[in-house]
Amino acid sequence: MYFANLKQDNNSHMSNTQVRLKERPTGMTDASTWDIVTGEIPTPGDGQFLYKVEYISLDPAMRGWLNDTKSYIPPVGIGDVMRAGTVGTVMKSNHPDFKEGDFVVGSLGVQQYAVSDGTFCYKSDTFGLPKEKFLGVLGMPGFTAYFGLLDITNPQEGETLVVSGAAGAVGSVVGQIGKIKGCKVVGIAGGPEKCKMVVDEYGFDACIDYKNEDVRASLKEHTPKGIDIYFDNVGGDILDHCLARIRFKGRVSICGAISGYNSPTGPKAPKNYLSLLINSAKMEGFIVMNYRDRYMEAAQQLGKWMLSGQLKSKETIIKGVDTFPDTFNRLFSGNKMGKLVIKA
Amino acid sequence: MYFANLKQDNNSHMSNTQVRLKERPTGMTDASTWDIVTGEIPTPGDGQFLYKVEYISLDPAMRGWLNDTKSYIPPVGIGDVMRAGTVGTVMKSNHPDFKEGDFVVGSLGVQQYAVSDGTFCYKSDTFGLPKEKFLGVLGMPGFTAYFGLLDITNPQEGETLVVSGAAGAVGSVVGQIGKIKGCKVVGIAGGPEKCKMVVDEYGFDACIDYKNEDVRASLKEHTPKGIDIYFDNVGGDILDHCLARIRFKGRVSICGAISGYNSPTGPKAPKNYLSLLINSAKMEGFIVMNYRDRYMEAAQQLGKWMLSGQLKSKETIIKGVDTFPDTFNRLFSGNKMGKLVIKA
Repeated sequence: MYFANLKQDNNSHMSNTQVRLKERPTGMTDASTWDIVTGEIPTPGDGQFLYKVEYISLDPAMRGWLNDTKSYIPPVGIGDVMRAGTVGTVMKSNHPDFKEGDFVVGSLGVQQYAVSDGTFCYKSDTFGLPKEKFLGVLGMPGFTAYFGLLDITNPQEGETLVVSGAAGAVGSVVGQIGKIKGCKVVGIAGGPEKCKMVVDEYGFDACIDYKNEDVRASLKEHTPKGIDIYFDNVGGDILDHCLARIRFKGRVSICGAISGYNSPTGPKAPKNYLSLLINSAKMEGFIVMNYRDRYMEAAQQLGKWMLSGQLKSKETIIKGVDTFPDTFNRLFSGNKMGKLVIKA
Repeated sequence: MYFANLKQDNNSHMSNTQVRLKERPTGMTDASTWDIVTGEIPTPGDGQFLYKVEYISLDPAMRGWLNDTKSYIPPVGIGDVMRAGTVGTVMKSNHPDFKEGDFVVGSLGVQQYAVSDGTFCYKSDTFGLPKEKFLGVLGMPGFTAYFGLLDITNPQEGETLVVSGAAGAVGSVVGQIGKIKGCKVVGIAGGPEKCKMVVDEYGFDACIDYKNEDVRASLKEHTPKGIDIYFDNVGGDILDHCLARIRFKGRVSICGAISGYNSPTGPKAPKNYLSLLINSAKMEGFIVMNYRDRYMEAAQQLGKWMLSGQLKSKETIIKGVDTFPDTFNRLFSGNKMGKLVIKA
């Protein structure tokens, strides 16, 4: 029965390729950071199920999990399979709540097969949508955008919203929700191709190309009244430029600081933080996992907006677990469009 | 009638000494920053009153008013009387709402006499309290503590509150309100004398002497569970140390950054701001003047706490408008206890 299942899967392998953390990086990860190992497909014990990983999520936050510092979750251990969000299918189950064939969203790591006791896994209908959407707009990045914008900044009609990382999995959804809520939305992204997509596909009012424009001057042009809400994915100088333009009672939602993730000294400190004082503004961080109880609310709303055509999404799909070391660095070079996933 | 009034006042002068801004400082102010001029006592026109300044408030925020940069209020103009909060008495009035003998709290500047049309002035009863209290615990510093703690951070019983500038006019009130609300309160102040006062007089649970202790280590000792609320008067390294210890859903109230006010490059940027992300915490600024409509609420509550003995305050009073250039710098050297005022 067990092997029969595997044979029904055209993409199945009789072995399991995994990416394990070999040594902690300082700065960018490279081949020396990872061990790519091939072993046997594991056997589920009591209360466990065997899971075929179909798509693996690549997210900037994963870089933080490699540092041995106190954070919202423990670091990935040396020798452990790299932690990552996944979608896939239950192949064999000794778990009462999961059965063969179930489509499951989880965090089963950079590998082809996993066993799980169901922790942080949930079953879902695919609603006929491509499965990789459940790692993007209908998964963590979409939920991150949803709660990080709506819960932290409470956008109001007519307000000016600026989003960095605007072409990315989170930023593209933030800006589209901002438009749905009636904001003027200005994106910041790297390169003319991404900026064009942000405006033409995602419907932002404007997009600033930080690689080819003077961000400070362009912000002044596109946000003449200042910035009510800044959704920050990048940190660094762009955060400072936006702080300098924040309006009375403005809100900065701190989602990430990708500009500093590979710096051994961490992200640049925001020199203009006293703009918060002068403008009675706030800067607030959040972790999407703390909204776990409300994921279904977000999924339903995001799904409705997708079906109505108000919310679009794009994925870059790279084939092969063994490409992970290179593919991961595309997050930081910007060489991808929308959500970056690996097809396992 | 007019001169008769002046003669009734034992402290009256037949001339008016004023401190005017001569040139904008870079770094600390000194004698070259100011012109001390003596002129005639002004005559109130229609809709104005003549006001004898009795006490002048000295506040760290005044340093910011000397910089020619966009802020929450315009900078003091070159040649203008230095802006400052004041308490005093109406000497002669052509204003329907103010009459001779009224005790008035206002912002009439560093001078002995002023005329005013009543803008930003309010009449008050002294309730038999020393008038200088209306520049401290019952004035802007008290209101700043009240709104900046209660409105921005919503302290809960059992939470840990850290306050910098703990011996100062704002910080001492913040900590005492924190105790009233059931928090564990740890102050940070400069020197053993101030720290002793913070604990013995104001009832804080502990006070860290930043001039003689390793602040990071002492914070670890006194806030073993971390910091729920940090009320920041100083910025700089102390802000970073507190950010590093902020707890889940922690709140940082940005009241000021006195450590950087005299630096031409401004205050040090907070390197540890991503602690806000990791801990789903917020950092929020405020300007007390935006709470103008609720000043009476604050005054009544603070007055009740004073009368019940739950709230204590201390002032350092220096005699003479002409001492202003030196007295002002005591704010930054720390050579004062509690609220610093000049007796005009």
